[in-house]
Formats: sequence, structure tokens, C-alpha cells
Amino acid sequence: MANTKFQYVRCFEESDACLPDTYMVVRIDGRGFTKFCKAHDFKKPNDKRALDLMNCCALQILNDFPDIVLAFGESDEYSFLFKRKSKVFNRRRSKITSSIVSLFSACYVFHWNEFIDTPLKQVPQFDGRLVLYPNDQVMRDYFRWRQADCHINNLYNTTLWNLVLKGNLTLADATEELKGTLSKDKNEILFSKFQINYNNEPEIFRKGSVALQMLNTEEKRQKKAKFVPEIYHIDIMKDGFWEKLNCIK
Amino acid sequence: MANTKFQYVRCFEESDACLPDTYMVVRIDGRGFTKFCKAHDFKKPNDKRALDLMNCCALQILNDFPDIVLAFGESDEYSFLFKRKSKVFNRRRSKITSSIVSLFSACYVFHWNEFIDTPLKQVPQFDGRLVLYPNDQVMRDYFRWRQADCHINNLYNTTLWNLVLKGNLTLADATEELKGTLSKDKNEILFSKFQINYNNEPEIFRKGSVALQMLNTEEKRQKKAKFVPEIYHIDIMKDGFWEKLNCIK
Amino acid sequence: MANTKFQYVRCFEESDACLPDTYMVVRIDGRGFTKFCKAHDFKKPNDKRALDLMNCCALQILNDFPDIVLAFGESDEYSFLFKRKSKVFNRRRSKITSSIVSLFSACYVFHWNEFIDTPLKQVPQFDGRLVLYPNDQVMRDYFRWRQADCHINNLYNTTLWNLVLKGNLTLADATEELKGTLSKDKNEILFSKFQINYNNEPEIFRKGSVALQMLNTEEKRQKKAKFVPEIYHIDIMKDGFWEKLNCIK
Amino acid sequence: MANTKFQYVRCFEESDACLPDTYMVVRIDGRGFTKFCKAHDFKKPNDKRALDLMNCCALQILNDFPDIVLAFGESDEYSFLFKRKSKVFNRRRSKITSSIVSLFSACYVFHWNEFIDTPLKQVPQFDGRLVLYPNDQVMRDYFRWRQADCHINNLYNTTLWNLVLKGNLTLADATEELKGTLSKDKNEILFSKFQINYNNEPEIFRKGSVALQMLNTEEKRQKKAKFVPEIYHIDIMKDGFWEKLNCIK
Repeated sequence: MANTKFQYVRCFEESDACLPDTYMVVRIDGRGFTKFCKAHDFKKPNDKRALDLMNCCALQILNDFPDIVLAFGESDEYSFLFKRKSKVFNRRRSKITSSIVSLFSACYVFHWNEFIDTPLKQVPQFDGRLVLYPNDQVMRDYFRWRQADCHINNLYNTTLWNLVLKGNLTLADATEELKGTLSKDKNEILFSKFQINYNNEPEIFRKGSVALQMLNTEEKRQKKAKFVPEIYHIDIMKDGFWEKLNCIK
Repeated sequence: MANTKFQYVRCFEESDACLPDTYMVVRIDGRGFTKFCKAHDFKKPNDKRALDLMNCCALQILNDFPDIVLAFGESDEYSFLFKRKSKVFNRRRSKITSSIVSLFSACYVFHWNEFIDTPLKQVPQFDGRLVLYPNDQVMRDYFRWRQADCHINNLYNTTLWNLVLKGNLTLADATEELKGTLSKDKNEILFSKFQINYNNEPEIFRKGSVALQMLNTEEKRQKKAKFVPEIYHIDIMKDGFWEKLNCIK
Repeated sequence: MANTKFQYVRCFEESDACLPDTYMVVRIDGRGFTKFCKAHDFKKPNDKRALDLMNCCALQILNDFPDIVLAFGESDEYSFLFKRKSKVFNRRRSKITSSIVSLFSACYVFHWNEFIDTPLKQVPQFDGRLVLYPNDQVMRDYFRWRQADCHINNLYNTTLWNLVLKGNLTLADATEELKGTLSKDKNEILFSKFQINYNNEPEIFRKGSVALQMLNTEEKRQKKAKFVPEIYHIDIMKDGFWEKLNCIK
Repeated sequence: MANTKFQYVRCFEESDACLPDTYMVVRIDGRGFTKFCKAHDFKKPNDKRALDLMNCCALQILNDFPDIVLAFGESDEYSFLFKRKSKVFNRRRSKITSSIVSLFSACYVFHWNEFIDTPLKQVPQFDGRLVLYPNDQVMRDYFRWRQADCHINNLYNTTLWNLVLKGNLTLADATEELKGTLSKDKNEILFSKFQINYNNEPEIFRKGSVALQMLNTEEKRQKKAKFVPEIYHIDIMKDGFWEKLNCIK
């Protein structure tokens, strides 16, 4: 058979299995989303519709990959945590990463209309990478890093865009104004200039989104799946949160 | 800043740059497409609309990645060849693979309606992997392997589905009938039973699809890009084909 | 400078840093030691002089690599455990593995005469590999695996060679006699035929050798180093042993 | 069996096979050789005895690894080139690198006395790494890089040490004198101050050492091996040299 003669090229495929018994985290990131947001008039500093769409896609990922026990999303990024003992796709790095990034991207287009009424004008694109975290400490610190990042960015953007939208500064002037300011300075600007208490801002903006596999209640159980993924906007910085996640290992 | 404290987790991100001066080939494959095809009533043995959609997505990939000099597609798979010296994304394996698989998947949903009138019922999914081929010989043999695979599968499927659709065999009986047959036997069945000369079957089915970056003619050049990707259904088995592709290295 | 022109080849050197915060274990194994033992008339089933030489080399490794907190040796193999946070050579896999295997091999020849009076007739050779263990459980189980292996092999070899040397069986007949026997059967053979209580065999044969970095007593401290490696023949199966090793993380 | 229970730890051993059909080059380098040379009073700028010892070890490597078709050595380093199709140890990176570095190190101690009459005072140590070169061009350029390096270093060292040993400069003053000088300046210093024509210096110093597998002549053939490695001090910069090495692929 003609095929056999060329099949030797398969030996160039390298094994890429991940070290067992470590946490695999796949992070996907929007590519060129500054332009993409502009093209679709996403609201500044946050567009809740776009975040809801991201969360919808994440839920689908958790549905299809029951070994994912938690995911965290903010802005145009999402991180998916597999339980430590997961054997999904024999832990092959490319297979896992590409399947997740593919499903997420396809979902983003598929569900666009359910969340956003402007028609989709250009194709969204994400990249993804898988990183291994060998123990609870570093895995938790990874997700703390992302939630701290969400908080810092959101405080900054909220202040910046209030200066622009309500304060009538240009974007350049507002940026200049915030140079070197600390968190408390931004809180102060928000409060004194715009009567905004940052702590009353919506939690989805301040804390990002956490997707979790939740045990089915009786009613849901009739639809068969044992776990159903749900979105929360909660604090994941404290050890207390993680200690309750006992399905993780 | 709260962020800094956790930022140390970045050191767990491993470098995954591909060996320079080798051909990078990204192959993407539909996941669960047997079910997906059934759900959307794709025609057997080939659904030209589905192949046209695949080709449309591939063209977009070539548009966005000018370092891809050739791609080959058949059924629900596509392989993308980067020129040997490509420095795209510093040759980072995950970044390259995930970006391509993401864009392809999003395009598939985005362009669905242009090719297929049944509404999209479920989200398509692809996986991807990047393989390195160190020289022309093995790189060409890789693509020969895929085109040979296309030919073998198509001859088999064409015969099988003619036995079913025109010969009124059950799928099981038709499968049984083809067990152990050689190419010439299948050609003979097609000809004697269904008056089909296999060599007259459409080239897109027999040879798959080859996407190439073509130098702009005058007219096209006004739209700016120097190269425009186009689809061909041609033989890529012979060295002659490859020797003419001088942009490849 | 002529050099600069070729220096680009350095970009082919791939990064091989090991995942941080995991246990690195380097295991080295004698290559072709069956022949090597024969050539130097090593005693069967164990040659204490050869084990002492192996231990001498291991001590030198621990001297030169203070990040190695424990090593375990049996027969012609030795495994070296780095503390989890070790940053030795920036955790570069090849650098670490090759340096250890080189030093061990050179020491083996260098110290040969101190342990063995036959002159060295051929050059000994070892290979080495580095394996990552992400947590205490699997790291300890690795060393338990090696000590269990030592026990099983030694019980087998002790029985086999007593059958040959004192029981006057051929090697083939002795091998045949032991086929399918359990531990208790071998213990019984040793006791009933040769009045040997296996538990009284030297611990170096039954338990292998454990090299540990020991805190200097006053006297040793004058020779400067804070830690001095020493060899023990002790049980490392129980968690109790590992819990006392608090320098390990 | 106690062993079985722990054997699962083997799954942490990662595959490290090198990409097929590429040139594998193992380079070993002396570690801490500045100190080692001083401890054994090696002559400056070159100690022929030490180079002969290096070459003797390299020959043994070529003897034991017939897939190595060429090696290049200078100072305390040696690079070994495997033929492109080599399947030695299934191309496992660690196995190949560690075996070579081990044998070389053991040989260095074993053969010390045949070349150097001072007794060996400390154990020599080498590290090693394997780099892949995907085609003839880059592989040849790698070796050209090493030979250019040899030339540049030797011209520098020859001039430096003549200034010190015959010119009675301190090492610091001689170093200062050479700062910013070009090749032709150093040639001029050697000639005008010390009547040395650099081109008449021994080729082993100027060109390094090349080990090659040579086809046995009748006489040698009686000792059985088909190929016998030999050392040359020749130019490997020109393509002509490489084109004659037809056993390489």
C-alpha cells in the first residue's frame, strides 16, 4: 500500500506527556483583543456582555472536561485547572491545550449572538499554553496572581475611564494623571471626584469569574450529569477557599 | 504591589521554542467529527460544502500567517507548513499551535452559513500538534503520506457508499464485501457495478486540497497584499511539484 | 572576527531547565558491569570492596554538591536526591546529570586501588538520567522502590550463590531450583541447607547504602565544612525516616 | 512482591528521544580546569601531554561508539558528531550524553600515567550536552566555530605567554598590552619580539585535533575492527573536507 512507504514520518512526532501528579493549568488569552474590542464597540472600562460570553464559553469547557475542577477568568483570558491526578488524553500537552483553545474559540463565535447584539465583524482568536504547578502552594499562588491582576487592572481602568468619560480628560491626560498613583490614591480619586466607592463596584469586575463543578441537586440530577459547572464572583485569595475544594487532587 | 508577591509563579512556564532551521508542520484534526457529520447530515462519501468550508478556513490561516507556504487538507484535517527559516512567535510551539487551531475553529463557525444551509447545531472542535521535519525529504514525505491517505480513504469510501446508496447493501454488508480488496478490485467494482470511472471523480475528493501563497497578479496587487493564498487540487507526490516551490526555505 | 560568523549555531542549543519546586533525582547505573565484574573477579553474590568503592565515590559527589541531601546505592547503581528548592546550575538537566556521572566515573578509577588490589583492567562506564518527582510521596516511593529492589535481588542472589558455591549446583541448576520460589522459600533454603539466617547477613548487602549530609560535630568542624556526608545501612521504607530529614525541602 | 507496589514511580521518567534524521553533537567541557591545570603544573600556553591525553580518551570514545564519525578537540573540550541516521540507544539524549561523558572521564584518570608523570592529585570533571543540528550547513558551521575558536584562543595565548615567559611582563601587563589588538598585531608582536612565525607553530595547537574513523588497511584489519579511529591536525573549515566524509549521513 502506497501509504506504508511514507508512514515512517510518524517517528518525527515527539512525545509530550506532562509530568504525572502535578497540576496542569491551561491559560488562554485573546490575541489582538484591543482591536477586536474597538471593532465591536465594547464598553469601557468593562463590558459585562463580553464577560458573560467568556463565562458561557468557560462553562462549556468545564462541561466537556470533567477533570477541570476550577477555572478563573478576567478580561480576555481564562485559566483552567485540571485535578492533579487527571489522565485526560494521557496528559499530552498539545492535545489538551489545542482542544481547549479550539472549543473555547468556536464557542465564542457560536454564542456571540446570545450576548451581543452587534453582529460579529471579525474572527476572534486566542492562544493557549499549559503550565505545570507541582504542589498546592504554587498552584494556588498562580490563581491568586491572576485575581490580584484582575483587581489591580480593574481599579486602574475604572479610575482611568471615569476620568475620561465623566471627568472629560483625554485618554492621554488621564493616563498621565494616574502615573505613580497607589491603590489608595485611585480609591480617593474615584470617591472624591465621582462619588464612587470602589468596593461597591460589581464583583464580576473586581474579582473576576470563578467556574466550579458543583454537585447536582436532586432536580438537576435528572438531567443526568453528576456535576454542573457554575460561575461565581468570589475571593480565591484565602487558603480557606482552597481547602474546601476537596475534589481537586 | 500585591501582584509582585505571586509573580514568582511565572518561573514555572517552560520554554518550548522549536529547533531552528527545521520545517514546522501544524496538523489539526476534527474531534468527534463522525457524530458532528451525522448531526448535520453531511453527504456520504464526501460533502463538498464541508470541504469548501475547511478550505475557506485554511485560506484565512494562510492570510494571517504569511510564513505558511503550503497547506494540505482532506476530510476533517489540515496540515500547515511553515517555511524553514520562519521565526513566527519565536518558534514557540504552544503559541503557534494554539493560535492556528483557535483561528481555524472560530472561522469554521463564523463562515458556516456561507457554505451550509442547515443551521450549526453543535460546536465543532479540533485538536492540533506541531511536528518538526528536519529536511526536504521527510517534509515532502509527510505531505505525500497525507495525500496517499486521502486517495486510499476516498477510493474506499466511494466504493463503500456506492454499494450502500446505489447497490442497496447495508453498511455492514458493504464493509464485509470490501474486506481484503485491493485498489484495482475497488476500481473494478465501481466500474462494473456503477459505471463509475474512479479517475473521473472530482479532484477535490481524489487529491485533497492544497493551499498555496500565490504572487499577486497586477489586479490583485491593488488590494495590497503581495501574496494571496489559493486552493488547488493537484498532485503533490512528485519532486517536480516541490522543486517549483522556491519560497519554502 | 572569524568566530562571530559561526556563533549563530549557539541558537540550536535548547533550554533544558527542570520544573522548579520538584525533587530532582539523578540515577547512575553501571554499563556492562556483568563483564566488568567478571574481568576483575568480583566475589559473588556481593563484593564488599566494590560496594565500598561505590560508596566512596558517592561521598565525593555529596561533598561537591551540597544540595544533594540523600543518596541511595546498591550493586552498580546510585541515586542522588537534590533538595526540592535546589537551584544548582539553574536546574539545567544535562549540566547536572553529566557533571555527576563524570565525577562519579573519574572517582571510581581514581580510588580503585584504595579498595581493590587487582589492577584495573578496563575502564568502567556509567550512564545517568534525571527524573523529577513532584512531591514527598512519590519521591519517597522512588527510594523505597530502590531499597525493595536491593532486598529482593540480594535475597535471590544470596540463595542462588550458596546453592552454587556450597551446594555444588551448576548456575543453571541453581537458577532452575529457584524458579517460582517466594521469599519465605528462599529464607527456608538458606536456613535448612546452609544454616544461614538471612536476617543476620550484613546490612550493607540487605539494605544497601544511604549517604546523608551530617551536621559537623565539633571536631570535624575544624576541617571547615558545615556538613559532612556519611554512609549508613538503614531502613528508608518508613515515613519516620523521611520526617526526620528536615533539610530536604 | 514488595517491588510492584512502588514500581509506579517509573511513570515519572520522561521520554527524551532526539528528533530523527538530525546530527547529534555531544560536547564535553572540563569543569574547573583552570585550577586543575595549575594543580598539575600544565605548561603554558599549551601542554602537549594534556592534549595527547584528551586525544587518547577521544579515540576510546570513537572505538566504543562506531556511529561517531568525527570528533573535534581543543583545550579541555571535545565535540563528538554522530552520523545523521544513528539509532544509538534509540537516540535517548541522557543515555547518550551521560555514557560519553562517563567513559571520557574514566579514561582520563585511567590513562593519566601514560602521558603525564606528575601523579594525579585531584579528580577531573567534565560536563556534557547534546545539541541537534538539522542539516549539513549548520553542523559544519558548528565545527568551524570550534576550530575558529581554537585558532583565536591559541594566537592570543601564544602571544600572551611569550610576553610573560620571554618578554618578562607580568600576566596583568601582558593582558593589558593585548587589549584591542587584532590578529595581525599579535602575529607582528610574535615575529618582531620573539622571532616566532605563528604559522610554524605546531598544528595540534593551531588547528586542534580531529578524530576520524579510518578504514582499516590490510595490516590493521587483522586486529578485526573494520574502522580504526585516528587523530589528525587538519583544516575542517572548507567544504572540501566535509564532502569527502561520505560516511556521515
